[in-house]
Amino acid sequence: MSENRINVTALSEQLLGPYAEIRKASRARAANPQLQRDPLLGMDEHRERVLGQLGILVEQEAVQRAFPKEFGGFDDHGGSLAAFEELVAADPSLQIKAGVQWGLFAGAILHLGSEEHHAKWLPDAMSLKTPGAFAMTEIGHGSDVASVATTAIYDEATEEFVIHTPFKAAWKDYLGNAALHGKAATVFAQLITKGVNHGVHCFYVPIRDEDGNFLDGVGGEDDGLKGGLNGIDNGRLHFTNVRVPRTNLLNRYGNVDADGTYSSPIPSPGRRFFTMLGTLVQGRVSLDGAATNASKIALQIAVTYGNQRRQFNSTSDTEETTLLDYQRHQRRLITRLARTYASSFAHDGLLDKFDAVFSGRADSDDDRQDLETLAAALKPLSTWDALDTIQECREACGGAGFIAKNRFTQLYADLDVYVTFEGDNNVLLQLVGKRLLTDYAAEFRKLDTGAMALYAAKQAGTTALHRSGLRSVGQAFADISDERKSANFFKDPENQRALLADRINAKVASVANALRAAGKDKAKGAAAFNENQDLLISAARDHGQLLRWEAFTAAIEKTGDPATTEVLTWLRDVFALSLIEDDLGWYLANGLLSMQRARTLSGYINRLLARLRPHAQDLVDAFGYTQDHLRADISSGGEAERQDEAMEYFRKLRASDNAPISEKSLQKAKR
Amino acid sequence: MSENRINVTALSEQLLGPYAEIRKASRARAANPQLQRDPLLGMDEHRERVLGQLGILVEQEAVQRAFPKEFGGFDDHGGSLAAFEELVAADPSLQIKAGVQWGLFAGAILHLGSEEHHAKWLPDAMSLKTPGAFAMTEIGHGSDVASVATTAIYDEATEEFVIHTPFKAAWKDYLGNAALHGKAATVFAQLITKGVNHGVHCFYVPIRDEDGNFLDGVGGEDDGLKGGLNGIDNGRLHFTNVRVPRTNLLNRYGNVDADGTYSSPIPSPGRRFFTMLGTLVQGRVSLDGAATNASKIALQIAVTYGNQRRQFNSTSDTEETTLLDYQRHQRRLITRLARTYASSFAHDGLLDKFDAVFSGRADSDDDRQDLETLAAALKPLSTWDALDTIQECREACGGAGFIAKNRFTQLYADLDVYVTFEGDNNVLLQLVGKRLLTDYAAEFRKLDTGAMALYAAKQAGTTALHRSGLRSVGQAFADISDERKSANFFKDPENQRALLADRINAKVASVANALRAAGKDKAKGAAAFNENQDLLISAARDHGQLLRWEAFTAAIEKTGDPATTEVLTWLRDVFALSLIEDDLGWYLANGLLSMQRARTLSGYINRLLARLRPHAQDLVDAFGYTQDHLRADISSGGEAERQDEAMEYFRKLRASDNAPISEKSLQKAKR
Repeated sequence: MSENRINVTALSEQLLGPYAEIRKASRARAANPQLQRDPLLGMDEHRERVLGQLGILVEQEAVQRAFPKEFGGFDDHGGSLAAFEELVAADPSLQIKAGVQWGLFAGAILHLGSEEHHAKWLPDAMSLKTPGAFAMTEIGHGSDVASVATTAIYDEATEEFVIHTPFKAAWKDYLGNAALHGKAATVFAQLITKGVNHGVHCFYVPIRDEDGNFLDGVGGEDDGLKGGLNGIDNGRLHFTNVRVPRTNLLNRYGNVDADGTYSSPIPSPGRRFFTMLGTLVQGRVSLDGAATNASKIALQIAVTYGNQRRQFNSTSDTEETTLLDYQRHQRRLITRLARTYASSFAHDGLLDKFDAVFSGRADSDDDRQDLETLAAALKPLSTWDALDTIQECREACGGAGFIAKNRFTQLYADLDVYVTFEGDNNVLLQLVGKRLLTDYAAEFRKLDTGAMALYAAKQAGTTALHRSGLRSVGQAFADISDERKSANFFKDPENQRALLADRINAKVASVANALRAAGKDKAKGAAAFNENQDLLISAARDHGQLLRWEAFTAAIEKTGDPATTEVLTWLRDVFALSLIEDDLGWYLANGLLSMQRARTLSGYINRLLARLRPHAQDLVDAFGYTQDHLRADISSGGEAERQDEAMEYFRKLRASDNAPISEKSLQKAKR
Repeated sequence: MSENRINVTALSEQLLGPYAEIRKASRARAANPQLQRDPLLGMDEHRERVLGQLGILVEQEAVQRAFPKEFGGFDDHGGSLAAFEELVAADPSLQIKAGVQWGLFAGAILHLGSEEHHAKWLPDAMSLKTPGAFAMTEIGHGSDVASVATTAIYDEATEEFVIHTPFKAAWKDYLGNAALHGKAATVFAQLITKGVNHGVHCFYVPIRDEDGNFLDGVGGEDDGLKGGLNGIDNGRLHFTNVRVPRTNLLNRYGNVDADGTYSSPIPSPGRRFFTMLGTLVQGRVSLDGAATNASKIALQIAVTYGNQRRQFNSTSDTEETTLLDYQRHQRRLITRLARTYASSFAHDGLLDKFDAVFSGRADSDDDRQDLETLAAALKPLSTWDALDTIQECREACGGAGFIAKNRFTQLYADLDVYVTFEGDNNVLLQLVGKRLLTDYAAEFRKLDTGAMALYAAKQAGTTALHRSGLRSVGQAFADISDERKSANFFKDPENQRALLADRINAKVASVANALRAAGKDKAKGAAAFNENQDLLISAARDHGQLLRWEAFTAAIEKTGDPATTEVLTWLRDVFALSLIEDDLGWYLANGLLSMQRARTLSGYINRLLARLRPHAQDLVDAFGYTQDHLRADISSGGEAERQDEAMEYFRKLRASDNAPISEKSLQKAKR
């Protein structure tokens, strides 16, 4: 089978994506033990170590890529995220603390501030002279940023803003750099001038003096030990009538004159709010990349081990079976490998879109909205998948997987909160769902009888859709139980695409229909929305999966090598068909698949997995991580060595005349 | 709705099950901070603390329940496990280290040894004078215990066994008490006498002197930091020609005379091996209970918080929505609440079966095999469910869920390996699957045309089954899309039972068919088995779920109070219908549900969840844990206090004439 092997080097390069060189440089950095986690350190020491590591990144000039040229940067937004994403291999705490400092804190100054603000605060934020906190989330207002209760009331008499925390639910919480290291914070508060609230704005607020003591009116608490990411000093902050100069308002999207007059380039408060928050999308984008990288690392370890480790001898008297030869093991690992490839290719597309918007190459309102939707659709999938993948890898390695030095458990613990921060996954998917509803409504408005027919079909209770050219259930019933015909159907990318797309359309149509039926009454509308919340979120997930499928398919077209193309096509098929298998009930209930076809699906996936099994090692090796990144005992080759030793023992035993155990006993013992 | 409220006190008592008083006493113990985890301790201190806690359990006479009366015990096997299971609320490390000492180490002496062995070693094992390791698992042979490579070769000259580790893969690994505290070990090795291997037997082997130094020939390593359970000193052991007296063989099921003659009350080596291992089933049984308890604790915390915490104001301008009023939140928590109830009732049945076998009340071979199958079916479900439930609860509490003091993350980390030890979940389910195949074959052999007809139906490619009286797909198609009819169908327990049972039969029949087609050739048979491994494991899971459903249904019948009965019935329906929803593709593809019915299922579950929502707090309160057990900041009522403070602030603001924020601004801010 060697002639059919994939070209690992070329695939590896393709997987590194458009920022290959930057990723390689960052991986080289992550291979440096100085930047890695030391598992023996307790929380306090770990926090200090990671702070020191941020200093090393500054020394190595590894942090300024996203910033303007005049500050030593490259205005390279996509490349900057690619570099940070790779730090997850060193220590997720390092990746996230770097993200707090240069993505969130300095990023708020860069994106929400004026050029004066840049000149005044960016250099010290970039050099880490001013470690900073990003004070947005409040104890009582996690995902609902528009409702933060911290106030910034303008005082015309002194030309100052008074930053104030009215009650405990308005304390800022979970802020990296807040417990210990932060000297300043970008604080989100309701801007009030002349008795009018202009909504949430961001203010630059010094919080500690040079000795690390809170400034007057500033207080806080340490969040203490967390489930993971303990290299970051998360904490709470509160403000008691803290005064900052008027010019500390980061005023790119809203300004207050000396006399207290408010002005903004964006008249609509809603649009203004979303524009300001939109500048922070990079956090979501980079979590999507980092989470995908964490899945890759876990899979590279677990597949390597599953390719060496043997257990039970089901087919032979003397040789035990390699784990990855078990169908169940293939189901556990190779399906997740397929998904991780999809996630990796989709992330490249997201990063490209992000760079286009932030570089100004393509930054219309529509582009920005598309970027938001893309990020909100992909980040939930990749972060949930990372937890699922790491956990399955951990379990697939048995007891060894639970030993800390084999990486999985700490990786899981650190990645856990990725599903919550930078936008809770369920909340993000609901945003995507709302966007899908809007698009559906728009399409519905502008379209002719096609859409009306679709709508009418829904009304009549039959949800078979025609737009994508899928055969109806009647036709599908016609091809009686022919496995090969069925396989041909499933492996046709047009059919995969249609199946993945149509369920989104149908689910969104169903929600839209329910909302329409509820009419304009606010309470009824809210109730109808809630009664369809789960379905809408499911449609949003489906939308993210379709985006991944498209990215995967596009990537295959760019793969020159025929063997690689063939193997990646099988892998893409496993990705697509596993999604369909997971939602098989929906497809059948809504007439998009026949019973006959549905019954062949799992078997076909199993056959694809068996076909992919000989390529599993190549497919994880193509991720390109080395043992410096994997750092798991079980990926070091120790398992193979142990087995060689055991085999040699048994070989000698068989050859020996006066062995303590007879050949027969040996057979029996190995029954 | 107060008159419809469930009787929390009575339900709580019912949930405590047949060992209610013992559980209460153990919970009172677990409420003692001395026995709880101190999150500030590092691994070394945590290990010492847990060792000390075992001493406290001895002092409190909390460990001898399972042992014979002559050693101060009660011969109470079921009650003993009930007591240990509750210790998970104090610290899972305590539960597991106690399990190692009194369940595994002392349990091996009790169940595999003779009365002389009991007299000689049990008192010190019980009093913790001899902390012991249970040395079964080897690095290279985790689940495949029959293949352990450690040898115990009988030396007639000295009347000793020579315990030896031939190569590194044969090192004993992951053993609690092995790294530090163990003074002796019960070692599993191939018993060889007169050049014949009689298979795996257990030997009592001293490993450390009074000062904690390894005895001659014994060596080992510390497993070091683990993903959780770091209060236990897991480690590795190896033996270099370590000699123990002949009488150190725990010889209940196999003995070697002074002259080296082997004898056993069980002639078949296979049956002997499984009988010996069968005595250790208590580990699996108690993990099932402990994992279910961990799910209860997580749900009690998360539901309490979800009932207080508010986020976003979708329906009102001034009041935010309580989390548990969101459909998605109900889907996330109440479905898992239903499953945890099912698991709790099923565990009572398992404990009852365990007690019947171990007390001798009903301990035929069939009883023992049924107990094995029950434990192997339920332990995987409850341990996986615990991880899933704890994680979902953690995420449902957002950032607060990630803070260590809110319990979820440590609970997850500790429970993680429950899915691996005492039998890897996938391996256990495969055992269950094999048992189902045997039963199917037996039924097939003895049955008349009924089973033949079933088999013929399979052959013809149609899998609609008739035995259970389910309507065929043709009939189902007849009742056109009537939601009420459909709901009546789904809520009928006979239909639920049939749906849950028939998929097991059909899947097992399908596997049996494939194996039969492969014929008697070993390689072909093994290949066919592997090609159906995933399906067989899926059938085994289904079997466990059916057992749970039956236990839940039986429990409802014992609930006297009408309101409680009604609510528990809804909850049982959610449990059953969620299972069917998860496997909906299978039901439709195999003609057991019509498309029309399938389309109404999710909506019906959503309506049940909304009906259950007002009872969610009662349902978790009935678990009966107090804040001493929950110990989460967010279950302390702090969230409600913070909200009251915020409400009071806004109330005063509205009443004030010269408020800094106008009423209008306030509205806008709360948009």
